[in-house]
Parts: sequence; C-alpha cells; structure tokens
Amino acid sequence: MVTERIQALRAEMQKRNIDMYIVPTSDFHESEYVGDYFKARKYITGFTGSAGTAVFTKDAAGLWADGRYFIQAEQQLAGSPITLYRMGEEGVPTVKEYVEQNLKEGGCLGFDGRVINAKAGEDYEKIAADKQGSVYAEEDLVGLIWENRPELPKNPVFVLEEKYAGESTKSKLGRLREKMAEKETGVHILTSLYDIAWLFNIRGGDISHVPVVLSFAAITEKECFWFIHEETLSPGLLEYCKENQITIRPYGEIYQYAAGLPEHASVLLDKNIVNYRIFRSLPPKAAVVQEENPTELMKAIKNETELSNIRNAHIKDGVAFTKFMYWLKTNIGKIEMTEISASDYLEERRKEQELFVDLSFDTISAYGANAAMMHYTATPESNAVLKPEGFLLVDSGGHYLDGSTDITRTMALGPLTEEEKFHFTTVCRSNLNLAAAKFLHGCRGLNLDILSRGPLWNLGLDYKCGTGHGIGYLLNVHEGPNGFRWKIVPERGDSCVLEEGMVTTDEPGVYLEGKYGIRTENELICKKAEKNEYGQFMEFETITYAPIDLDAILPEEMAASERSLLNTYHKMVYEKISPFLEKEEQEWLKTYTREI
Amino acid sequence: MVTERIQALRAEMQKRNIDMYIVPTSDFHESEYVGDYFKARKYITGFTGSAGTAVFTKDAAGLWADGRYFIQAEQQLAGSPITLYRMGEEGVPTVKEYVEQNLKEGGCLGFDGRVINAKAGEDYEKIAADKQGSVYAEEDLVGLIWENRPELPKNPVFVLEEKYAGESTKSKLGRLREKMAEKETGVHILTSLYDIAWLFNIRGGDISHVPVVLSFAAITEKECFWFIHEETLSPGLLEYCKENQITIRPYGEIYQYAAGLPEHASVLLDKNIVNYRIFRSLPPKAAVVQEENPTELMKAIKNETELSNIRNAHIKDGVAFTKFMYWLKTNIGKIEMTEISASDYLEERRKEQELFVDLSFDTISAYGANAAMMHYTATPESNAVLKPEGFLLVDSGGHYLDGSTDITRTMALGPLTEEEKFHFTTVCRSNLNLAAAKFLHGCRGLNLDILSRGPLWNLGLDYKCGTGHGIGYLLNVHEGPNGFRWKIVPERGDSCVLEEGMVTTDEPGVYLEGKYGIRTENELICKKAEKNEYGQFMEFETITYAPIDLDAILPEEMAASERSLLNTYHKMVYEKISPFLEKEEQEWLKTYTREI
Repeated sequence: MVTERIQALRAEMQKRNIDMYIVPTSDFHESEYVGDYFKARKYITGFTGSAGTAVFTKDAAGLWADGRYFIQAEQQLAGSPITLYRMGEEGVPTVKEYVEQNLKEGGCLGFDGRVINAKAGEDYEKIAADKQGSVYAEEDLVGLIWENRPELPKNPVFVLEEKYAGESTKSKLGRLREKMAEKETGVHILTSLYDIAWLFNIRGGDISHVPVVLSFAAITEKECFWFIHEETLSPGLLEYCKENQITIRPYGEIYQYAAGLPEHASVLLDKNIVNYRIFRSLPPKAAVVQEENPTELMKAIKNETELSNIRNAHIKDGVAFTKFMYWLKTNIGKIEMTEISASDYLEERRKEQELFVDLSFDTISAYGANAAMMHYTATPESNAVLKPEGFLLVDSGGHYLDGSTDITRTMALGPLTEEEKFHFTTVCRSNLNLAAAKFLHGCRGLNLDILSRGPLWNLGLDYKCGTGHGIGYLLNVHEGPNGFRWKIVPERGDSCVLEEGMVTTDEPGVYLEGKYGIRTENELICKKAEKNEYGQFMEFETITYAPIDLDAILPEEMAASERSLLNTYHKMVYEKISPFLEKEEQEWLKTYTREI
Repeated sequence: MVTERIQALRAEMQKRNIDMYIVPTSDFHESEYVGDYFKARKYITGFTGSAGTAVFTKDAAGLWADGRYFIQAEQQLAGSPITLYRMGEEGVPTVKEYVEQNLKEGGCLGFDGRVINAKAGEDYEKIAADKQGSVYAEEDLVGLIWENRPELPKNPVFVLEEKYAGESTKSKLGRLREKMAEKETGVHILTSLYDIAWLFNIRGGDISHVPVVLSFAAITEKECFWFIHEETLSPGLLEYCKENQITIRPYGEIYQYAAGLPEHASVLLDKNIVNYRIFRSLPPKAAVVQEENPTELMKAIKNETELSNIRNAHIKDGVAFTKFMYWLKTNIGKIEMTEISASDYLEERRKEQELFVDLSFDTISAYGANAAMMHYTATPESNAVLKPEGFLLVDSGGHYLDGSTDITRTMALGPLTEEEKFHFTTVCRSNLNLAAAKFLHGCRGLNLDILSRGPLWNLGLDYKCGTGHGIGYLLNVHEGPNGFRWKIVPERGDSCVLEEGMVTTDEPGVYLEGKYGIRTENELICKKAEKNEYGQFMEFETITYAPIDLDAILPEEMAASERSLLNTYHKMVYEKISPFLEKEEQEWLKTYTREI
C-alpha cells in the first residue's frame, strides 16, 4: 500500500517537475503531535511514530527517525522501499545534509509551505539557490493523493477558569505587550497552539491528548486577533473573547492578515514555529524580529496557583497509579492480563479521579522486549500477554483541570535476572541523583544531565534521548524551554536556565534491544534554595508519588546516601497517597514503601 | 603614589580630549601573564593580580577583578581613589557595560590599540559610534608617564628537540597549512606566543615562568615569517629557521606587513587574540576569516611522545612534592618555617630533578586565612610564620623539558577543627568524583563540572572560578581550549569538546574569607574508553602523584566508592613515587598512602 502511495506521489511530483519532496511530521503550527488530518508522513510511509521526516526523489525514499524510534521504524519499514536514516548516529546525514547532497543542480525542491517552519524553509531556499534550483511550496502533494483524508479538527473550545490558570488573560496579554514593547515590535504573530491556549486561557481537543485549539493569533499594542473556526466557539466563548478584546477571524485568514500588514511592519515571531507560508506572506520590507515566543518562558514558569493545583493533580494521579500497581502485582499470574488490558485498568483508575479530562498521552504499556522500544504503543497485533516474570514498563499520565502528569514505572511481574535488577537499581540511582541536585541559579539542563546519566555511562550504557522535558499545564506533556539533555539540540529549544516554578521530568532508562526496557520517571518542580555570597541556590521538589518497585532493587548496589534518598521518597509517597487507598492497598503500599 | 600616577594620566587624557581611558592587563599578544614591560595596569592601580582592567575618566577610576582576586584587590586598593568592580557578581556591570553607560555623548574613548584585541576594539568602536563619539587607539598613555619602565624582554631562544616535542616544525606547519586551505585563506596571522612557540618548537623566557618568545608570525602557503628581535637568536637558531623555511623579520614590522598584504587578501586570524592595531592595519578590503587559531586545538591534543614525557615529568614533580610534604609535616613545630621558606624548600626539591627548567608559575604558599585568597602570593610583608595547626595550601608546579606540572595540596600542620576536616574531605570527594568520570565523546567541561562542584553546592558553598584548565607543554600552565567550568565564559575559550590527549586540571576548593582555604589539584589526561552502540566513551587518567593529606580526611564522610577511589589513587602514588625516596621518606609515604 505504501509502495502504491509513493508511486502516486511521484506521479504528482513529475507533473510539476519536482525532483525532491519533503513530508515532515507537522501541522501548520509546528505542533509536536499532530491531528489525524496532518498525518501525511504516516500515510505515505506506514511508520506510526510521533516524529520523523520522509524525503522522496524519483528513485529514492528515506525516513529520518530519532533514537526513540529506531527499533520501531525498522520493523514498520520492513518490506517497504523506504530507507531508514537513524538520526544522530555517526555518518548518518541530517535531512538538510541529505537534501544538500542529493538535490540535483537546477533541481526543484517541494514541500507544503504550511507544514515547514520559516527557518527550515529559508534553509531549503538557500540549498536550492546554491544549486541554481528552486523551491515549490504551494501545494500539499500528499493531500492530493490521500483518499478519505480525515477532516480538519473542529472541537469545542472551553475556558480554563482562573482558579486553575492562576492568571487572567488580560494580565497575560499585558505582560506579553510589555515584551513586545521591549523589542520595539508592533505586531506579534503567534502560531504555537500551546502558547495560544495558555495566553487566552482556553482549551479544546484538536490534537489527541493535547487539549489545544487549532488557531493562529496576532497581537498588536491595542488589538488581538484570533484566527479560528468560529463554529467551535459557543456563545459563552464569543462573549469571553469580547470581554478580553479578542477579535475573531476565520482560521485560514492568517495568510491574508500577514500579507496585509503595513509595508514596514516590525513583526515579532519565532521562525522556528511560524510556518513558511505565513512568513513568506509578510510584506517583503517587513522587519522580522526573530525571538522565542515570549509566552514560551511565561508559560513554563508555573505560577503559585498552578503549582499548588499540579501537586494536587499528582496526588490523584499517584492514587490511580498506586491502585493499578497494587492490582497488577497482586493479580499477575492469577488472572489473564495483556499490555492493553493493564493500561485499560490504569485508565479506569485515572478516570475515577476528580477533574480528570483525558490521558495526557497514549499510554506506553510495554512488556519484556517490547519495552526496549522507547516509545512503543501496544497494538492489537503486538499486544503481549503478561507473564509472572520480567518487567512491565508503563509510561502514562493524565490531564486534569488542575494539571497534567507524566509518570513512568517499571514493575517486576515475578522473578528477575540479576542483570535486570542491577540495571533497575542503576536507573533508580540515576533518577534520585538528579532529583537531589542542588545548584546555582544559571545552570541549564546540560549542566545537570550527567547526575542522571553518569551512573549509566559508568556501565558503558546510555539512553538515546534527553533525561527529561518540561511539561505543560493541561497542554502538551512535552514543553520547552526547560529540559535535561547533555548536548544542545537547537531545534528542541529545551536548554534554558532553570527557573523557579518550572516543572521538568526526570526519566533515565536502560533499553536493551530484544531483552527489556527500564525507565523510572518523576516530575520535579524547580525551587529556590538559600541565597548567599555565592549566589542563588536552586533545588528540586519531586511531585510524582508512586512506589519505585522494591522487588527490583538491589540495596547493596546503592550508596547509603542513595538508599536514604529512596527511603525519604517512599516515606513521602506513603504519606501523600495512603489516605486515599483501601485498607489492603494501604498495607501493600506500606510494604512497598518500606525502608531499605 | 597611585593617586599621583592617575593625576598624570588624566593630564595626558585632557591634552588629547580623551574622556575615558582603558588600561587592560595585556601585552601585544593577549598573553594571560605579561612581562614587566607590560604591567601598566599594575603601575597605575597598585593591584598586583595577574588579571584585571582599569578604566579612568575625569572623575572616576575603576578596577575590574575576577573572583580569584576579590579579597586581594580590596586590600590593595584600600586608600586609593579606585573603585573595585567584582566581576560576575549580581548587578556589577562588565567593563563594556560600564563604558556604554558612562562614555558621554560624543565622547572620546582611548586605549593603546596594541594591548586590546581586535574583537574588543571593534566593540569599543561600536559603543563610541553609537554615541557619535570616537576611539583613540594610537598611543600608550601610561607609557608616557611611566618613569623607569622596564625594557621589552629579549631573552635567548632555544629549540625544543623533537624527542620532547614529539612532532617536527615542518609537520606542524604542514598540518596548519591544511587547515588554512580548508578555510580557503591565503595568510594566517598568528600572534599568540604560546602557539608560536608550539608551532616552531622553540622556547624562550620572555614572560616570567612562561617560556615564550616575544614575536609574531605570519604563514602563507609557501612562506613563513617570524617577527622577532633578531638579537635573541643564536647562529644555531638562525640556521634552524633557515632549515624550516622560517624568514626572520623585525618584531615591530608586523604592522607594516599587515598593511602591505594584497588588497583582497583572505586572512585567517582570531580577533580575540590578534591586537586591534594589527587588525586595523590590514587593507580595508581584506577578507578576515574569524577562527580560533588552528594551532590552539592542535597543541592542546598532546601527542604520544608528549604524554609519555608528561607522565615522567609528573613522577619527578611528585617526588619533589612528596619530599617537601614529608619535610613539612615531620618538621613543623620543630624548626622555624614561613610561607616563603616552605616554598623555597619545595623549589629546591624541584630544582634537583632532571630536565628542570623553571617553576611553572609563582608558587602559592598560603597559611591559614591567607589561603582564602585564591591567588595569594606571599610577600616579605605578608609572609606568615607556620604554626603546628591549621592548613598550609601550596599551589605550585615545575617546567621540565619533558613537560609542565601544576599541583595543589592543602596540608594539615597540626590539629584541625571538625569544619576544616569536613571541608577538606568534601573537596577531596569533589576532586575524585570528577577524575572518575566516564562520559560519551562530545561532552564539554560544562557537562562534567558538577561532578566536582556538586558536593560543595550541596553544602551551599562554591568556588568562584573554573574547576580546571588545560595545561601547556613547557608553556603557559593555563591553556585552552579545554577546561572545566559550568558556565561558558566566551573570552576564556575553554569549553571545547574534550578530546583524547588533552590534559586538564581538576582543582575544586573551599575558600572562607578570614578563615582558611582548601584546594586539591590533580591533572587528568583525557583518554578513550570503550566504543559501542552508544558511542565513544571517554575517561581520565590522573597523572599527579602526591598524597592527599589523610590527617585531614574524615573517612565516615565519604561513600565507600569514594574511599575506594582515594585508596586506589594513593596506591598508585606509592608505586610511582616510593622508588625515588629515601628510606624514612618511603615509610612516611607508606603511612600517608594507607588504605582508609
């Protein structure tokens, strides 16, 4: 099927004299996850991962996937004419390098200008120009051949009340306009769905598990335009917009709006997010001020209301997870369970919690060797039966009106090998070491990453991803500009200075292809510690509350200080979670949070 | 005296309508330490530290010093009209910010264009231009008022034989020309004294303890010019130059050479090092290719011959230091000792070693509270008498034909407080943790710094400097581009990816003003460990061999793994050093390298 689709795409390319066509994984907003309408790369390659870029020429077809997806992509591309490019591995060209090396002299490079950001579009323009070639960005060729393509999502919009958001839209707009004035810009084009949702205190459901609203925004000193499918707005919402002086415009009109800006407009925008077509619609003499969207840092620094809500959401989520873990570990081998039935059971426990909205992402429930695939999703075909041995890795989370969660636990379902226990213990040490960090303000994730990664590096092991990511408030679970990563990846934008109020995950792991996967993930709030003559010290508060499976821990492989960190953590888990459990669950939790 | 000198300087400024005059600590080569001729900043401020910048206006005088020198500068500026600016502290402007804030509209900013690098000169040009002002860089005003100024140094030059350097000058020039060709540049202007010495395999003595030769170089595809005081070259040296096709030109002619380059010359140079006057002498249409000098990375990656020599130099240096430590600790309280007499004794031990050339820097021998000043130098006035209590900190090193060393030990001279022992133990842990690091190739010092700094940060302590620096081979003990530091300081240029063959110090410390200072410094060679599917792992080999004073260690404050690191280190010290000791010294060393 993939082969036929590629043939059809090549026919469209040929009609237009396009020599190379790029199909990224993106919507018109550079969202990390995309709605079904936008899954062109999945349609044309068959690879279901959440990220990756496909490139087609007359003869060649390639898919670029990152380390999370090497194993999965290899399996899903097997038998197709598509070559897998393992991003980041030695000798593997990046997409841009590939284009540079393979676009022929005078060649035409095609892509849909709405799903490529302005920065990348400019880079491609330059590559083509250097070869006396051209760029064709006017059409969505996959769209032309895609039968029964899903509709653009148009889900209802709701207001996130101030008791949840902690700050009014008016206040947020005021702060944003201050930043615009600082940069001496007259208009700000904001296309990030997360930032728009945060700024307007609205949520929707236009991306699976990411409660955003498909829309664009443009803010000037006095005006604020929201380009949106108006049918998604209830009368109450229209009233809310009016109150906040937000003017509604049709979704597709952003391009005309951009084209109609004053000839010399000074436009604040982030070329890494705003799509190439909007960028190229601006008046040619407009002065573009390239900056990260100011709202990105604003929304990453959670306010006191948000933080207190988030802690509460985590208690509920921890109760749900602990109930699941109790059920799993006391019933394994007694009743039939599969990866999917286990994750369904967990989902039910989350749904029972107050203010639950949705899962915050597709649960990863991965048994045995399946867990070696970092972002495995169980399908009816792959769905493994759980046996009373080895590890089940569950990475999951919930969206609540009072915040979003992201937690991973790897649980022993029965006997483990010594190697499994040793690696589990090492991952636990990695996780605890980072959470215990105390550091001077000014540190970035790249200064701290080794606290987590070091114990694994000492064994000659590594995990092919960052150690952690920022997390949105009832938004995307992956949020910049904070994160833990040892090498800056510019397009990730997750290497900012860690500020008080940022929430970041801490999720080291071990992944052994064909054997097993282990990950332990907690969320950390960055807080101020003492300030003295050396500067402002910072530290973390762990806000994920669920046992780290003691059945898989080798206490003798931990330093006394590390055991003490684990004991302190488990004591807190028991205190926070046990009041909400049944008696037998409480007793179980007591055992599983005991001192070692 | 300082007050009168400043008055005289202001008179010269007034004659020329200069509103602000900058006096940095620099020679014409951006050397870290400068010969006496170049100590204009010391002359005009009275501050004797090795780094710092003075700025004068009609009414104000300021000195910018870095964290190593806060305490010392405060003492030395007391009573002068000069304000101390503590670089890096909150709210303290940088020199450039100060100039920006205080140069008046239309004002004239002055400095000697030979002691300001091209990059800084351009920045100052821009600041002045933004104020419709001007830059006056033609004269050395401090030189005009400086009576009895020392002469420019003109010490004899010698060749460093290939058995020491490990690579011929011809080979080095060949590699350099390859880099020039890669960058498509026709001429490379090289003014770093360290790089010139490395490239030509020559050494001299033009900076105290830095065996360099005052000179400039210019390399083209076919030619190589060495701008040098010819009287410093023996007939043998002239012959050596001829053999290596190095053409001699007078030292001062570099400016005419630059001016005489072809109109459209493509010039490879590092604006952070080449002085502003050379840069401004280039033909206006010359294309300057801004790059780090290629020789910087080449010389930092020591070849196998150099590494094997360096290890040998460290054994000799360790023998000298161990003999000193034995003498110190067995004689304290029995014979009179001072900071200076102790460092003299150590110097004698070094001089006894084969191939000794010089100390590699002025020994820091600092007793008690004096050691809280990071870069204290004992003077006849400050010279403290050593008592059988508290700590003596000795930071010292030797230049040998087979390499340079830099070692710090802090030694208990008698009873210590519990706090002193606790801090000493923590510093020891910091040092060992970094030395034990295993990491993926690609890491920079800023990824690893927390391994050393973390244990101190955990106590709310910090040291106001990097954790370590690269070290030259019979050159400057401070050498880029490698180093350990948690925040990039662009002008330091010490944050490169750590490569096999680089040698870096590991020297965490605790400095408590008015109380004591503790530092433990070893040198580490970066080496390859295993390569596997995760990448190339790297690790360190410690090459400094001298006991870490067990009298100051609290074993119970160390994790078992840390005690094991210390025991392994001490076992190696005993094995390497004991064969070269007298019997009673051997016995003493046995005790001081015992397992804990």
